Parts: sequence; C-alpha cells; structure tokens
Amino acid sequence: MDRKEALQYLKTARGQTDAVIKMVEGGKYCIDISKQILACIALLKKANVNILNSHLQSCVKKAISSRDGEDIERKLKELAEIIEYLNKVL
Amino acid sequence: MDRKEALQYLKTARGQTDAVIKMVEGGKYCIDISKQILACIALLKKANVNILNSHLQSCVKKAISSRDGEDIERKLKELAEIIEYLNKVL
Amino acid sequence: MDRKEALQYLKTARGQTDAVIKMVEGGKYCIDISKQILACIALLKKANVNILNSHLQSCVKKAISSRDGEDIERKLKELAEIIEYLNKVL
Amino acid sequence: MDRKEALQYLKTARGQTDAVIKMVEGGKYCIDISKQILACIALLKKANVNILNSHLQSCVKKAISSRDGEDIERKLKELAEIIEYLNKVL
Repeated sequence: MDRKEALQYLKTARGQTDAVIKMVEGGKYCIDISKQILACIALLKKANVNILNSHLQSCVKKAISSRDGEDIERKLKELAEIIEYLNKVL
Repeated sequence: MDRKEALQYLKTARGQTDAVIKMVEGGKYCIDISKQILACIALLKKANVNILNSHLQSCVKKAISSRDGEDIERKLKELAEIIEYLNKVL
Repeated sequence: MDRKEALQYLKTARGQTDAVIKMVEGGKYCIDISKQILACIALLKKANVNILNSHLQSCVKKAISSRDGEDIERKLKELAEIIEYLNKVL
Repeated sequence: MDRKEALQYLKTARGQTDAVIKMVEGGKYCIDISKQILACIALLKKANVNILNSHLQSCVKKAISSRDGEDIERKLKELAEIIEYLNKVL
C-alpha cells in the first residue's frame, strides 16, 4: 500500500515537473515557478517516506525473520546510509 | 542564464522521476528507489535556487529601478512568503 | 517584532539544546534524543524566517529608499547568497 | 563513538546558539545572524545522524539479537516515525 501511495505521489510530481518546465519555457513569473518547484519537492518527500516505510515493513522485516546475520547487517548499514543521505539532501 | 540552468536541472529531474516511476512499477529495491528520489529532490532544489536568483537579478531589480513603491512592496512581500514556504518544504 | 519573536525561538532552542545534551550524557533513549534535536531544528528554522523577514522589512527596504545603487546591489547579492545557503543546509 | 561525536556537535551548537542570541540582542546585522542560525542547524543535523546511527548499531541490533518479536516491531515502528518526522522538519 505504501508503494502504491508512493507511485501516486511520483506520478503527480512528474506531471507537476512537466508543468514547471512549460512555465519556465513560457517565461512565467519566477515566484509562481518557485512555488511549483517546492510543491514538487513536497510530493517527492512524501513518496520517499512511503518507500522507506515499505522498506522497513517488508525488506527489513523479512531479513530479520530470516535470521540471516549478514543480510541484517547489510540492512542496518543501508538504513544508516539512507538516513545520512536524507540528512544531506533535505 | 539562471533560467537556462534551471531548465536543465528540471529536465534532468523529469527524466529521473520517470525512471523512479519505472523502478517502483518494476518492483525494484526500496533503497535504490529512495536514493533516486533524493537525487531528484537535490536537482529540484538547485533549479529553485536558480529561479530565485533570476528573480532577484531581473524582476526585483526592475521593480527597484522603476521606483514604483507599490510594486517594490509586493516584491518584498513575495520574497518573505517564498522564504517562509522554502523553510516549510525544505 | 520579528526580531523579538526570533529571540524567543532562539532562547527556547537554547534551553532544548541544553536538555538534549543532558539526555545524551544521561544515556537516554536515542529516539527520544533524536526527536528533541529535530524539535530544536524546527525552532531555529522559525527563528531564521523571522530574522529574514525583519531583514527584508528593515535593512532591504531602507537600502531601496536611500536609492544607493551600490547598497541595493549588495543587498540583492546577499539575499541570493542566503537563499543558496538555506537551500544547502535545509 | 557516535554518541560522543553527537555530544561534541551539540555542545558546539549550544555555544553558537548563545552567540546568536547575543547577536540578536546586540542588534547585529540580520544576514550575519541568519548565517549563524543555519550553521547551528547544520550542526544539529549532524548530531542527529550520529544519534540515529548509534540507535541502529546498538538498540536496534540488540532487539534483533534478542529475537523479541514485540521489541523488534516497536523498533521498526519507531524508525518509521522518526523518518517521517525527519522528513517533516528537514
């Protein structure tokens, strides 16, 4: 369900990015363009939360259930990395 | 020039959003999807800085030169609003 | 008024940072610490919006009224820089 | 080690918040104040990454090792919540 929601946000973001490109090409007012870009970012951030939720609830949970120590270690390392990347980009 | 650069970032962001959508639909790994979403956000943030730079260097500068008090007032109000929105979304 | 509000946010943020330091030193639970750090960041972001509002309404407006071209140019350059920095940190 | 690093960042952030408060009270230039606030935020973001790293490497790892299903579930739920909060604040 999280992935489905993410897909919805991503498709809306793509549509809005298209619209922003047309606004820039059409010489529209900067402030209106900036607001639309920020709206796209807000959508992508929501999609990202959904994807990471889905990750925790499926991939990470599965790794824990499997008791595969190496896989669990990899999952924790990936989570640490994505949190660091999140912190850098946002 | 800032607008041209923004356009470049936006087009790259659109291509990447397309790719992310295909990744979600194709059941790709969550962490890889999340990284791509964050890369899109980083591009949109850069585009936004370019647009706001362009705004300051053209629209705001023009309003100041015209000495149209009402227009200047509007420009300052808009800048305050966009900074507040930026702060909320980022 | 914006500066006064900023001061309030900053003082609250200082108190919370103090509290967070004690939490880390006292071995408190990571998630609770992380939530408090994020609350501090939220306060500092609000203080920053107030300061930039105050800047637009006083310093920038004064520069425009003075019709000092060089000062206006500097103000616009500073605004562009702070927006870029904002974009990088947030 | 992550907690020790976090503590360092937090103490520096507290010192800088103090300095920012004095800058506001002393009527210092808005742009300089804003830059300092953003520097504080950058420090707190780094501290937060350290704390969450420490959380993954100690608390979460311990819960997984213990095979306490309820505790693991709680840890995953908390991670999802903190990622959502991170997304909202940053």
